[in-house]
Amino acid sequence: MSLYVMKFGGSSVGNTERMQRVAKRIVEKQDEGHQCVVVVSAMGDTTDDLIEQAMALNPEPTAREMDMLMTTGEQISMSLLSMAVQSLGREAVSFTGWQAGFRTEAVHGKARIIDILPSRVQEALARGQIVVVAGFQGMTEDGEITTFGRGGSDTTAVALAAAINADVCEIYTDVDGIYSTDPRIVKCARKLKEISYDEMLELANLGAAVLHPRAVEYAKHNHVRLVVRSSFNNNEGTVVKEEASMEQGVVVSGIAYDKNVARISILGVADYPGVLAEVFGALAQAGINVDIIVQSGVQNGEADFSFTVSKSESESALSVIQGLKGGLPYREVTSEENLVKVSIVGAGMISHPGVAAQMFDVISKQGVSIKMVSTSEIKTSCVIDGGNLEEVIKALHTAYNLDTDVQVFVGGPQDRR
Amino acid sequence: MSLYVMKFGGSSVGNTERMQRVAKRIVEKQDEGHQCVVVVSAMGDTTDDLIEQAMALNPEPTAREMDMLMTTGEQISMSLLSMAVQSLGREAVSFTGWQAGFRTEAVHGKARIIDILPSRVQEALARGQIVVVAGFQGMTEDGEITTFGRGGSDTTAVALAAAINADVCEIYTDVDGIYSTDPRIVKCARKLKEISYDEMLELANLGAAVLHPRAVEYAKHNHVRLVVRSSFNNNEGTVVKEEASMEQGVVVSGIAYDKNVARISILGVADYPGVLAEVFGALAQAGINVDIIVQSGVQNGEADFSFTVSKSESESALSVIQGLKGGLPYREVTSEENLVKVSIVGAGMISHPGVAAQMFDVISKQGVSIKMVSTSEIKTSCVIDGGNLEEVIKALHTAYNLDTDVQVFVGGPQDRR
Repeated sequence: MSLYVMKFGGSSVGNTERMQRVAKRIVEKQDEGHQCVVVVSAMGDTTDDLIEQAMALNPEPTAREMDMLMTTGEQISMSLLSMAVQSLGREAVSFTGWQAGFRTEAVHGKARIIDILPSRVQEALARGQIVVVAGFQGMTEDGEITTFGRGGSDTTAVALAAAINADVCEIYTDVDGIYSTDPRIVKCARKLKEISYDEMLELANLGAAVLHPRAVEYAKHNHVRLVVRSSFNNNEGTVVKEEASMEQGVVVSGIAYDKNVARISILGVADYPGVLAEVFGALAQAGINVDIIVQSGVQNGEADFSFTVSKSESESALSVIQGLKGGLPYREVTSEENLVKVSIVGAGMISHPGVAAQMFDVISKQGVSIKMVSTSEIKTSCVIDGGNLEEVIKALHTAYNLDTDVQVFVGGPQDRR
Repeated sequence: MSLYVMKFGGSSVGNTERMQRVAKRIVEKQDEGHQCVVVVSAMGDTTDDLIEQAMALNPEPTAREMDMLMTTGEQISMSLLSMAVQSLGREAVSFTGWQAGFRTEAVHGKARIIDILPSRVQEALARGQIVVVAGFQGMTEDGEITTFGRGGSDTTAVALAAAINADVCEIYTDVDGIYSTDPRIVKCARKLKEISYDEMLELANLGAAVLHPRAVEYAKHNHVRLVVRSSFNNNEGTVVKEEASMEQGVVVSGIAYDKNVARISILGVADYPGVLAEVFGALAQAGINVDIIVQSGVQNGEADFSFTVSKSESESALSVIQGLKGGLPYREVTSEENLVKVSIVGAGMISHPGVAAQMFDVISKQGVSIKMVSTSEIKTSCVIDGGNLEEVIKALHTAYNLDTDVQVFVGGPQDRR
């Protein structure tokens, strides 16, 4: 007998039929002799409907009242899912976030979990009940209801799995698992049997939007064994764990991309100590996330450097830089918007020299020039012109032996809450 | 400065526009220098929608999970109403039943309030905030969410008014107040300025479905001054309090009716001690509510007696009686379905002899025969044939000086939660 935490996203419980299918799946798991705790998101469009109603009354509601409103979405789906399980002749009980023991900091809309006191969940399990928990929500010490922000239900599942010492935390979603790259671009993308937390984090951050990075970090920190799999079939999913066993000849596990990249270059900056801190401090204060930063050498006391931001933030980043001109002498600021970032990710890279060099070679053979490069122990990213993204990804996928014979069909990743 | 509890039913907050109108009304009250605690029901059709979703998954859900589901209705409307108030530039904060301190017995679907610990409500008032509380719900000692059943939001408002020592508890609904009879039948029905708790209880039980009897009982017990008024206009409503001041010449305050009446008669029953207890004990055990009971005299050791039940329960009442035949010798059982009960209610009846006699006279002058009679200190009820109900009510209304010159237009009473 194992203890499972099973998380189902909003599209998995989007209507009565899907809700019934999920209930059946939970009962099958119990029939195999396991204990089940289910974490569930708000049904399909519920969240959007609630936001729409709120906006009609107040375009700027307080975060507290939004939390009050939004948490009803999960409360509705958890109670309906319990009823669906009960209709299959099993005992089920649902708990809101606060009933399941989630204690959070006193911040609305993006609270962090401080502690979990899961005694009611454990008592229900001991009674042989299937436990359904509302994702995405908790309570402060003062009895205020809070939410976790994006990826919140994934985080609920992982955190609860850690708190009750579950054997596995299964994340059911609308894709079969984690793929070597986006199957919409590369038809012969490979479904990964296993992947390490660190690789998953790089892939998640880079846009393979199946698991929220915060949930992966939580899983890594608490050694929770994650499985990402489809709620629409019984295919084996992808296991996310400490160390993935490496397949023969596969150094790179996956290829990720980000289409939302803009580059800003500041040329001829007076090079004095603290100049970088000044520039990026100002950007941070304006709430702008900077991704890659590259500084070329210094010549005649002047330096050039470039950084990337998301396209939507490029305008505001430019005006921050222009606002600095008085105190920070520079010759020129330029920007470029039609760019993408492509990254190879693999825990094996650290012990295989030449992996990055091969990437540069593959990209240049596509006649594409590399604008910026950034490397970490398990990742190499190149910023290139957007027009050639698909060819470059396909070429890299082949070059790193990731192509498989099986063609997959997968819808877009949608379960984001 | 007075402290107001204002309760708005589901139809009063049924859509965005109505919600905004209610918000404006609350702000006006605050502008007059008062403190406001608002109790709100689920919006319009929300309750029915939720029930429909539940039934699609499980025709017999547990009461616990239904409570989990149904309480989201009030949580949605309370947060939206708070946002609407905030959009008018006021501070507002919403509380669920458990946050507002409602502690109940451990029964789902129809829990009784054990205690109210309203410290969070009082603290918010002290901060100058408008407080919005979800009606109809509370929490057990074990942290289980419960609901109060029909009329639950009225009960929330009255109980909270008692707990925080409010000056007035206003029940906003879709009628202007309490009328001397159903304005759909008598166009010149009179809106009552005042009515006593006891009269209101008789009228509420008899079908003037504006205030739930349980809420009236609670108000009586805790001396809460109630005002019933419309959420759609500024007309003065009806004050419900200890002793209503009697208008000149008005002994009867209101005329109520019940169209859902069936009579069952048991003829030729062997009259021995305990026979009535046996019959009505059996009916009670079958969960059948008996209203009026009449026993005529005993002849030759045999008695005849009759009682009324609601039409929907008449079949089961008959089979209970037939089931008793073995141990309880009787000659015959008969039943009649097309009946109505008409009642006159007035605190002044006790000190004005002849009020009942006048009723019988008025009814007989309509050519209608009276089948059964039942009296209490402030009420006389007659069971008559259903076909003549409207004429009888109009005639009584005139006879007891209740007609007014002002014709009223009122929609049907709808806010029932």
